[in-house]
Amino acid sequence: MRGIVTLTTDFGLRDPFVAVMKGMILRRAPDAVIVDVTHDIAPFRPAEAGFWLARIPPYFPDGTVHVAVVDPGVGTARGLLAASCDGQLFLGPDNGVLAEVAARPGAVVRRIAAATFEAIGAAAGGTTFHGRDLLAPLAAELAAGRLPFASLGAACSPVLGEALPVARREAAGIAGAVVTVDRFGNLLTNIDAALLDPCRRWRVEIRGREAWQALAYGEAPQGTLVALVNAWGLVEVAISAGDAATALGAGRGEPAYLHYRPEG
Amino acid sequence: MRGIVTLTTDFGLRDPFVAVMKGMILRRAPDAVIVDVTHDIAPFRPAEAGFWLARIPPYFPDGTVHVAVVDPGVGTARGLLAASCDGQLFLGPDNGVLAEVAARPGAVVRRIAAATFEAIGAAAGGTTFHGRDLLAPLAAELAAGRLPFASLGAACSPVLGEALPVARREAAGIAGAVVTVDRFGNLLTNIDAALLDPCRRWRVEIRGREAWQALAYGEAPQGTLVALVNAWGLVEVAISAGDAATALGAGRGEPAYLHYRPEG
Amino acid sequence: MRGIVTLTTDFGLRDPFVAVMKGMILRRAPDAVIVDVTHDIAPFRPAEAGFWLARIPPYFPDGTVHVAVVDPGVGTARGLLAASCDGQLFLGPDNGVLAEVAARPGAVVRRIAAATFEAIGAAAGGTTFHGRDLLAPLAAELAAGRLPFASLGAACSPVLGEALPVARREAAGIAGAVVTVDRFGNLLTNIDAALLDPCRRWRVEIRGREAWQALAYGEAPQGTLVALVNAWGLVEVAISAGDAATALGAGRGEPAYLHYRPEG
Repeated sequence: MRGIVTLTTDFGLRDPFVAVMKGMILRRAPDAVIVDVTHDIAPFRPAEAGFWLARIPPYFPDGTVHVAVVDPGVGTARGLLAASCDGQLFLGPDNGVLAEVAARPGAVVRRIAAATFEAIGAAAGGTTFHGRDLLAPLAAELAAGRLPFASLGAACSPVLGEALPVARREAAGIAGAVVTVDRFGNLLTNIDAALLDPCRRWRVEIRGREAWQALAYGEAPQGTLVALVNAWGLVEVAISAGDAATALGAGRGEPAYLHYRPEG
Repeated sequence: MRGIVTLTTDFGLRDPFVAVMKGMILRRAPDAVIVDVTHDIAPFRPAEAGFWLARIPPYFPDGTVHVAVVDPGVGTARGLLAASCDGQLFLGPDNGVLAEVAARPGAVVRRIAAATFEAIGAAAGGTTFHGRDLLAPLAAELAAGRLPFASLGAACSPVLGEALPVARREAAGIAGAVVTVDRFGNLLTNIDAALLDPCRRWRVEIRGREAWQALAYGEAPQGTLVALVNAWGLVEVAISAGDAATALGAGRGEPAYLHYRPEG
Repeated sequence: MRGIVTLTTDFGLRDPFVAVMKGMILRRAPDAVIVDVTHDIAPFRPAEAGFWLARIPPYFPDGTVHVAVVDPGVGTARGLLAASCDGQLFLGPDNGVLAEVAARPGAVVRRIAAATFEAIGAAAGGTTFHGRDLLAPLAAELAAGRLPFASLGAACSPVLGEALPVARREAAGIAGAVVTVDRFGNLLTNIDAALLDPCRRWRVEIRGREAWQALAYGEAPQGTLVALVNAWGLVEVAISAGDAATALGAGRGEPAYLHYRPEG
């Protein structure tokens, strides 16, 4: 069995931070497959990493171990957590990065005991890189199937940390906000398709502009502002073959209001 | 047998688009090796992806499956294609991305039938990410050797899409153009070494400047403008230890004329 | 046995240079695991690649083969080298990239003989991409355990190349310099923890500002300038939850003086 480990960090790819985490995983689990989720989380924004961590599991095999290292408090007393949800595992600091996964039905969170790291011979020789010195070795042991989740430490509730804004249903629509901007300039909102009334059509208002509901980017004429349910199940505002973020001057946190269209 | 899958996209690496394609491949083909070709294709430029797709196969093992996702028309009626050429396979939307591979001698192109995706249980749940929902699962089945190419769908001719400019032999030389700029600022032209008269020496004129033929970057004094046949077999204009794109103010599409030197 | 090959280059990730090196490794060593160290070495700065090459081995398994391609002199008469140190192997051009590894106790360096490349059937068809055409095939053979290090060529001393500045102990402290800036804007100096008097406390002066010794980034109030021994064992100047490089206007080469604090 080849275990899979994913990495989500704010390290970027310019320095060898990510590489040495991979080396440390391969030292213990030479058969592991390591997948980079992203290393471009905005520095010190655990909530953004947590947003993606909660959305990628359906696309990974059972037993995948997801490691998140967005850790401005490294070296302070903040704890390290492990979570289990739907047959996959998650490791990260206790700063909110696992809050969204932990809120899913059936999720269990454990505070990783110091004795767990000692038992596998992992030590933070330096105090500033727990991703490499503690989480990578632990992920390798978990991916290799040598350590049961229940043995990692006591069950606990994670710190919530800075939260992303939450969309709110109202009579006339849904009040949401942009949570991230992708490389095409598409604006991803926090309005999940599950919040929508499936029987009604809608438009999204953002910075005073109207984005009309479409089914696909390529459906509207080039340059048209459209809104659609994207591949993550979230309402997204886009410009067909263009860059909505630049055109609207909108970024993270920008309010976005979904209005239902009058019926009849 | 570990199959190899390569990925060529315009997704960038900031968002987890590439990661979930990898997860979807590993769910079906846990032994697959996945290689990133590039995720920095200029957004919506299938021809640029196609340019590289046609040039990388000599450096990959037999049986490699190359997946290209540069897909502004995702969710519209454009089809999905598979091509076979020289023992390697290629998957991508029918928008020109496979045009250059398809034009190679011996290449066969098939339009992937809806029944093929159904047979492997792949469905575009959302309508906007066929790379993840359709092509990744199909690439995994192909890499694992569970699906014969001939079964994918009917043979067809691909859409040509926007074409890169083609170099033209003339009496005094070759009229070409810059097709891409690499990270060093080297200007790659569409002038293939196969077009050159091997018995004659030459220089390249670009933006009114003369780049003289060299054999290696390091051969000329630092700061000299040189032209050489690069590692892809293409004529390239470079500045020794410098950045030709910036120095000349030249980019994609810039005309480049190769003049043969007078003999004698 | 799956061999591990790491890649350290100045190629960036926009063009498929790195991908074709991986393809060439997998053609010969289909079980190899390939890890990207960084592809963002400043173009033509072998010393920067060498700095990291000397620091990553403790985090990789025995037998790892590290390939460095920062090679402004490709195609000229510069040689190609292999080094062995602490059970790991290193390949790169003879331009200083292996100088720091070669200076380690017990390191052995060999100039790779032309006959070695011939014996494995590797040839630089083009003259400008020895990473793909010569070093990748050789790394694959070494990673697969098919070629003994001693057979590669005659022992030699490497060219030193441009050297990074070296920190100097003085009576009142240590005179050092910034060697690189990480993605958080932290300034990494060349002052190794091994140079420090472990019994004394210190501060670092840089661009007229004082950075006081801390144990962790998160220990100081946000916005405070701190200095600490980082995860590589080097003195680093940082701003808690901020960007020291931008705040100080400091980059590579900036002098940094570590002052011991008066005792008593």
